[in-house]
Amino acid sequence: MVKVMDAFVKDKPKTFCGIMGVYDHPEAAEMAYLGLYALQHRGQEGAGIVSSDGETVYSHKGRGLVNEVFTTHETIKDLKGRIAIGHNRYSTTGADDKMNIQPILVNMKNGPLALGHNGNLVNGRDLRTMLQEEGALFQTTTDSEIIVHLIARSQKTDPLSQIREALNQVRGAYSLVMLTKNKLIAARDPHGFRPLALGSLRNGSVIASETCAMDLIGAEYVRDVHPGEILVIDERGVQSECLTSKSHRTHCIFEFIYFSRPDSRIFGEYVDKTRRKLGKELAMEHPAEADIVIAVPDSSNTAALGYANHSGIPFELGLIRNHYIGRTFIEPHQNIRDIHVKVKFNPVGGVLRGKRVVVVEDSIVRGTTLKILARLLRKAGAKEIHVRVSSPPIRYPCYYGMDFPSQKELIASSMSVEEVKNHLDVDSLGYLSLEGLISAVPKEGRGYCTACFDGQYPVPVDKTVSKNQYIQPFQEIV
Amino acid sequence: MVKVMDAFVKDKPKTFCGIMGVYDHPEAAEMAYLGLYALQHRGQEGAGIVSSDGETVYSHKGRGLVNEVFTTHETIKDLKGRIAIGHNRYSTTGADDKMNIQPILVNMKNGPLALGHNGNLVNGRDLRTMLQEEGALFQTTTDSEIIVHLIARSQKTDPLSQIREALNQVRGAYSLVMLTKNKLIAARDPHGFRPLALGSLRNGSVIASETCAMDLIGAEYVRDVHPGEILVIDERGVQSECLTSKSHRTHCIFEFIYFSRPDSRIFGEYVDKTRRKLGKELAMEHPAEADIVIAVPDSSNTAALGYANHSGIPFELGLIRNHYIGRTFIEPHQNIRDIHVKVKFNPVGGVLRGKRVVVVEDSIVRGTTLKILARLLRKAGAKEIHVRVSSPPIRYPCYYGMDFPSQKELIASSMSVEEVKNHLDVDSLGYLSLEGLISAVPKEGRGYCTACFDGQYPVPVDKTVSKNQYIQPFQEIV
Amino acid sequence: MVKVMDAFVKDKPKTFCGIMGVYDHPEAAEMAYLGLYALQHRGQEGAGIVSSDGETVYSHKGRGLVNEVFTTHETIKDLKGRIAIGHNRYSTTGADDKMNIQPILVNMKNGPLALGHNGNLVNGRDLRTMLQEEGALFQTTTDSEIIVHLIARSQKTDPLSQIREALNQVRGAYSLVMLTKNKLIAARDPHGFRPLALGSLRNGSVIASETCAMDLIGAEYVRDVHPGEILVIDERGVQSECLTSKSHRTHCIFEFIYFSRPDSRIFGEYVDKTRRKLGKELAMEHPAEADIVIAVPDSSNTAALGYANHSGIPFELGLIRNHYIGRTFIEPHQNIRDIHVKVKFNPVGGVLRGKRVVVVEDSIVRGTTLKILARLLRKAGAKEIHVRVSSPPIRYPCYYGMDFPSQKELIASSMSVEEVKNHLDVDSLGYLSLEGLISAVPKEGRGYCTACFDGQYPVPVDKTVSKNQYIQPFQEIV
Amino acid sequence: MVKVMDAFVKDKPKTFCGIMGVYDHPEAAEMAYLGLYALQHRGQEGAGIVSSDGETVYSHKGRGLVNEVFTTHETIKDLKGRIAIGHNRYSTTGADDKMNIQPILVNMKNGPLALGHNGNLVNGRDLRTMLQEEGALFQTTTDSEIIVHLIARSQKTDPLSQIREALNQVRGAYSLVMLTKNKLIAARDPHGFRPLALGSLRNGSVIASETCAMDLIGAEYVRDVHPGEILVIDERGVQSECLTSKSHRTHCIFEFIYFSRPDSRIFGEYVDKTRRKLGKELAMEHPAEADIVIAVPDSSNTAALGYANHSGIPFELGLIRNHYIGRTFIEPHQNIRDIHVKVKFNPVGGVLRGKRVVVVEDSIVRGTTLKILARLLRKAGAKEIHVRVSSPPIRYPCYYGMDFPSQKELIASSMSVEEVKNHLDVDSLGYLSLEGLISAVPKEGRGYCTACFDGQYPVPVDKTVSKNQYIQPFQEIV
Repeated sequence: MVKVMDAFVKDKPKTFCGIMGVYDHPEAAEMAYLGLYALQHRGQEGAGIVSSDGETVYSHKGRGLVNEVFTTHETIKDLKGRIAIGHNRYSTTGADDKMNIQPILVNMKNGPLALGHNGNLVNGRDLRTMLQEEGALFQTTTDSEIIVHLIARSQKTDPLSQIREALNQVRGAYSLVMLTKNKLIAARDPHGFRPLALGSLRNGSVIASETCAMDLIGAEYVRDVHPGEILVIDERGVQSECLTSKSHRTHCIFEFIYFSRPDSRIFGEYVDKTRRKLGKELAMEHPAEADIVIAVPDSSNTAALGYANHSGIPFELGLIRNHYIGRTFIEPHQNIRDIHVKVKFNPVGGVLRGKRVVVVEDSIVRGTTLKILARLLRKAGAKEIHVRVSSPPIRYPCYYGMDFPSQKELIASSMSVEEVKNHLDVDSLGYLSLEGLISAVPKEGRGYCTACFDGQYPVPVDKTVSKNQYIQPFQEIV
Repeated sequence: MVKVMDAFVKDKPKTFCGIMGVYDHPEAAEMAYLGLYALQHRGQEGAGIVSSDGETVYSHKGRGLVNEVFTTHETIKDLKGRIAIGHNRYSTTGADDKMNIQPILVNMKNGPLALGHNGNLVNGRDLRTMLQEEGALFQTTTDSEIIVHLIARSQKTDPLSQIREALNQVRGAYSLVMLTKNKLIAARDPHGFRPLALGSLRNGSVIASETCAMDLIGAEYVRDVHPGEILVIDERGVQSECLTSKSHRTHCIFEFIYFSRPDSRIFGEYVDKTRRKLGKELAMEHPAEADIVIAVPDSSNTAALGYANHSGIPFELGLIRNHYIGRTFIEPHQNIRDIHVKVKFNPVGGVLRGKRVVVVEDSIVRGTTLKILARLLRKAGAKEIHVRVSSPPIRYPCYYGMDFPSQKELIASSMSVEEVKNHLDVDSLGYLSLEGLISAVPKEGRGYCTACFDGQYPVPVDKTVSKNQYIQPFQEIV
Repeated sequence: MVKVMDAFVKDKPKTFCGIMGVYDHPEAAEMAYLGLYALQHRGQEGAGIVSSDGETVYSHKGRGLVNEVFTTHETIKDLKGRIAIGHNRYSTTGADDKMNIQPILVNMKNGPLALGHNGNLVNGRDLRTMLQEEGALFQTTTDSEIIVHLIARSQKTDPLSQIREALNQVRGAYSLVMLTKNKLIAARDPHGFRPLALGSLRNGSVIASETCAMDLIGAEYVRDVHPGEILVIDERGVQSECLTSKSHRTHCIFEFIYFSRPDSRIFGEYVDKTRRKLGKELAMEHPAEADIVIAVPDSSNTAALGYANHSGIPFELGLIRNHYIGRTFIEPHQNIRDIHVKVKFNPVGGVLRGKRVVVVEDSIVRGTTLKILARLLRKAGAKEIHVRVSSPPIRYPCYYGMDFPSQKELIASSMSVEEVKNHLDVDSLGYLSLEGLISAVPKEGRGYCTACFDGQYPVPVDKTVSKNQYIQPFQEIV
Repeated sequence: MVKVMDAFVKDKPKTFCGIMGVYDHPEAAEMAYLGLYALQHRGQEGAGIVSSDGETVYSHKGRGLVNEVFTTHETIKDLKGRIAIGHNRYSTTGADDKMNIQPILVNMKNGPLALGHNGNLVNGRDLRTMLQEEGALFQTTTDSEIIVHLIARSQKTDPLSQIREALNQVRGAYSLVMLTKNKLIAARDPHGFRPLALGSLRNGSVIASETCAMDLIGAEYVRDVHPGEILVIDERGVQSECLTSKSHRTHCIFEFIYFSRPDSRIFGEYVDKTRRKLGKELAMEHPAEADIVIAVPDSSNTAALGYANHSGIPFELGLIRNHYIGRTFIEPHQNIRDIHVKVKFNPVGGVLRGKRVVVVEDSIVRGTTLKILARLLRKAGAKEIHVRVSSPPIRYPCYYGMDFPSQKELIASSMSVEEVKNHLDVDSLGYLSLEGLISAVPKEGRGYCTACFDGQYPVPVDKTVSKNQYIQPFQEIV
């Protein structure tokens, strides 16, 4: 079997996407390419760039990592023009979904429109049914196409009004970049679930999911796109419109815990700084009698350091992560125990032997990987294993753009902390409390969505919504 | 330069497509594949098959010849189910048009629909504009998608009524195969421009552009799909519906002259038999004092034999055609005179030297290839060259599915026969007369479209219609 | 199953290769490419070109047809320099043999040497064993590499002497082109089994297996490379050396019957002219009471015309050959009777119905295809089938470069003509006699190898030689 | 420009290869595949596996990472048999060198032999010239092929004697795995430059460059292959032979500093443990007044931790490494300053701002990356930058298998430490002393090659040897 690695080690929530927009740069597509490179962690299953030279709109999309999709300089050079948007995709369905790779590009009565979307709608199913009843033909199974159909059906005459009319009909999480022949448009839902930032580059503008994309191309961070704001960037400059008078900020707190890169600044704060506080808070709530602190690399490194520094227990590199792993892996038929985890992580015997070990992990979804890691650590000589998790137990599904397994697969949904500890077969287990989490994130003028921990959904969810809500009744054979 | 061979030797009209449908066969997709193989001459730039197992609809499409698109048995096996339709595409635009490869597959409110189309609409532009105004999003630049949008927008509830409503809005040439989860549907415009036949295979049914596709898979020809007929084939059997009470048959006479395979039976007659009569008629109208008759192989072979037999001048193989030519050819920078034609045809010196040669060609479009062939024949020793064409001078564009160059490029449109003769630099030139042509084709209960010869268009054409009517304002970078 | 078409319809002998050389042309590799295009019929499983700019030698090789191996103009442009050689390969072993694609390119003590070979050695096994005993490492399973090792091991100091020394050790059939940094070298075995011609192009020279390659690039045929001649072409001009004082010409008569293109001139005569005489001779030896004469297209066309003309029975096109067939074909699981032949040939019902048919075929190897064709013709309405073969019964294997199945698979080896007739289930069968064959080919100063018909081998064959003599003990997994 | 990333960030020495062997396992090729996966850091430009089922030997090789070369399970399954060897290649020449990918597979008089080699010979040029004079044909430009030719030319009759005779003629560094139809053979040069370990797996045996490959497949480490030892593993078990009575151990000390994975055990010691001692030693030799210690991730992590622990300065994650970087990168035309380094490393502003930073790096070759990193760190807010290098200045080329740039490009070869500090534009710079290095590595019964630091070459080097010693006079156009 060739297996997608994530099928093995998927014990992590997934975001759906990273988005990028560039306005007025002589190498706009190149800048979008670099931005997508920096945002690769937000989606690895597909990438695309659409550009415009004012006359024609150019598109290139494909499966895989950015550097698998864009393999020649010609491809990027052929994406002509001074405006470009890009999108990294993470897909939730196992099925073939080449058609779902964004940006979506359509031809409307007043010209071409391209759109890249990070997030998830909660009234997508109803809107889709309504549109299909009216004869709309859907090419993808994405929420994002609903937005495009709504824009196309608006009887307004200018793009901004059409977009406003469309967005007023959708509910849920969306950070958007759009491109027309001569405009770059950004929009963010009134709750600001997903991050989206505005920057400047030379005389032009940049839109990006995270600031690390701006760092790479030398753009300056200006400010976040406000929740409920539509930004239209064209030859007249940057115009801001409000979708609604009331915006209620409920940022996805998981962006701080795991999704965003530690060197990014989101929701007005450095991720690294917050993540370190999570580790410190965790050390205060759940101290341990131990000899060393190790992280499950790389996403838990910062929290582990925070834990180590506050606890005084030395930080060590007890797990080596193999970074040469591609997205696929050929599995031997004769089972090698724990191979799926071993191929990614190897314990360092010299560090672990005879030691009482604190293992810091940022989150536990199903617990499958961690259970195996614990076994590997013990086999490599660890005397005691104390798991510390820098987020609370995940008990509820997310409808705003995180991909969890179904609720019953969430280990903390059906087991108590004690039961999880026993299941993992470790010596102790401590989760950061919700209070501890809240106390560690920046709060001035901000609020957070913590629905996956406490079930409090800031935007009501259509009861019938499921994660894979739009089952395509057909399948493309590749 | 790598050049598409047809760019060199394109002095032939082109049809748009071949279509194939299979109902109730355990290897429906395999049968569609074989049918497309037999219909390869009707379109070489793309191919696709869509199948249904009653629950899910499966699709595979790609660029190139059938055997370039379907390269592994797995691909065909993955096209599961007992129903399948297939399509060979010839594209008129030079642009990248992967999206245009058929069958088109969409998801409508009452489930998936796939459609393959051979022909051309004459009111496509108006319909498209109307649909776009209403917010329809077009994914392709084909006429065929218009039909799909019209079906999707119908407020009727059953597929047959939806299709009837849609087809009543379109005018022009269409032979169609469609597939839903559990139905195979065929339809043909009331004029019957393009051929379409119904056959039986075991307990199931087959639809094909030409009967040669049925021969290959061992299916029995039953009858032609009638002009203006919709056939719905499902578990209840084959039901026939009339689109309109009045059908006026104007079959494309060029199918007999050049398009169809000589071993096919179309419009109720064997192509070979008709094509031979064209040669005989040509010999009567335009005798020649000559030593040998040769054909421009392979499409003119039958007419040349007819000419030779009637005239008593021996038939010879004076031109060898290289069949290993692929669709692309790398052209040397330093020009080799006539290389584009020489790579395809080589004169046989031993046959031609010192001879007075009758060259039979089925049609002349721009005259470019023939002019070069004449030069090559003369260089190989031919003493006299008498060109005989088994169709009348082509003077008018076709709006029903043949791809000619623009009218001014049609050599007979701007030159008299005498001028063409001088341009080709041959000793004599004779075209079959329209009357001769009509007298050679079967006539009982049938009529023909001869618009390309006489400008009499049986279906009025929107004045603004041009061949490449829908310019996509965007471009996919491959 | 994806099957190589030739596995189905392989009832033809195969040559091993076509070779081409160009000296002193600004686009030498382009000319070699065009030459290989014209020689495609001599080998379709691999192609390669090696060029030299006087300093560096460049190589590109691959599997498949010439236009599958050379797909971009860049590839050919990168083959720099004014000297080039090319090779089309037909492989006899079913195994993966990418390594066997020629030209072979090696680095010897006095620089690089590339070699393309058409033919087969009869003492290859002994030489190979001897060389391996001395420690020579073979990279291929071809005879051709033996020649290269012998050249490399020569203690002579100049290329010509090294080559002469090597060729004096080998026996069998070889037409060779070789390239060093600044020389083009051609050589032909003393019996002249395979054709090889010298031509001129501008100020330079051309070497080609057949003259059709010269026609395409506008080169002039000068003369054949003499049997037993080595030609060295460099800045000093064309120098000729004799390998041996005695050359005994035994040209492969099958080149006239089937291998060479009808528009080529080989062994000093036009192939078309000779092939037509075979048909005439056949008509005299084996007349038939029949209504029409048809050929198994395309290789038998000329002989069929010859038969028709002499017999007065009209020539007709009763079988249509599908030229869109690629090298592979996906076979349905549920057997369709005769599909392998039907996919290639379709009988034309209108021509055949009720007719007594003479079918002219150039040669019968195993009889498998012809047996099926006879069945298809009868099913299409032929009343009587009279097979006429324009060569004698093939009864013996060839060791000089034709690929037959094993002797026991040769139908005429184990059956009398009457038995073959019954096996094919036809009304009559007539083979051209050996005397008839000899009387039809040009004879002045020439002799022919007719070993496959009469078992008279002009060069004694090592008893242990088999066709696939060098079984590679390893296999490359692709 | 598409650029190979290493062209940007190549400020690291390179090893040539990783090798792996498996004897008597039902999925031998799968085990070799997994082993290569674990050894990916030793070579990323090509990979191959050869297996044997006792009758036939199977081979698959290709360019790129292991998971780019082996993409389907079928490929591995087709590598049949219970014996397999594998090789990861790092190539030193920029030229196309597909032919150089190992294992080399040849057919010798007593059957097939495959060989994988890690290391470099010092008398390769002389041997190659000698062999070519004798007529040996070289297919690659590798040293490794020389060994194969010497084995093939041996007049001994058994493989072990042939190999011993061959190895007695070569001098330099070699760790070898070889495969015949029914044997797995390993050998190591008498100095033991490169690591090579023997392990057991079920009833069979494993050979690997590093023990991390054994960990992954669950094999047990048995012992190192001794310097100067030949191991023959077949149905009779594991037999050991000595190449020479005197072995003088001079292990490559750089394996501890940088090459080997921290979780491996080489030369009898855990790499991680040694690397941590290097950091501690460095802290003692070169203390710093600083606020934080950061590593250049990932190879310097362990040394940085050692430094931090001993100095008491907190270890921090100040540089984020982007692991999604593929082997190629499309560079914008309009230069973005430092893009080549920024795309790989991003400084974390929140960690660095206002801090005095110790940056631990394992080695400096040209200093190009470090110079840029220092600039980026400063731009991100670092107040002071103190570079500490856990190895001495590299001043001399390596002839035993490390790939350095030419001596004059080695920054420490032409500059004093003070000059390097100024060039890097940092506040202080400290290299570990050679004595410090020696004191940190395990010493009992072992010796080390430190030639790159002190110019003391344990095996005399042919004066004319250069890194790219065998220039292939021809070029394969891909």
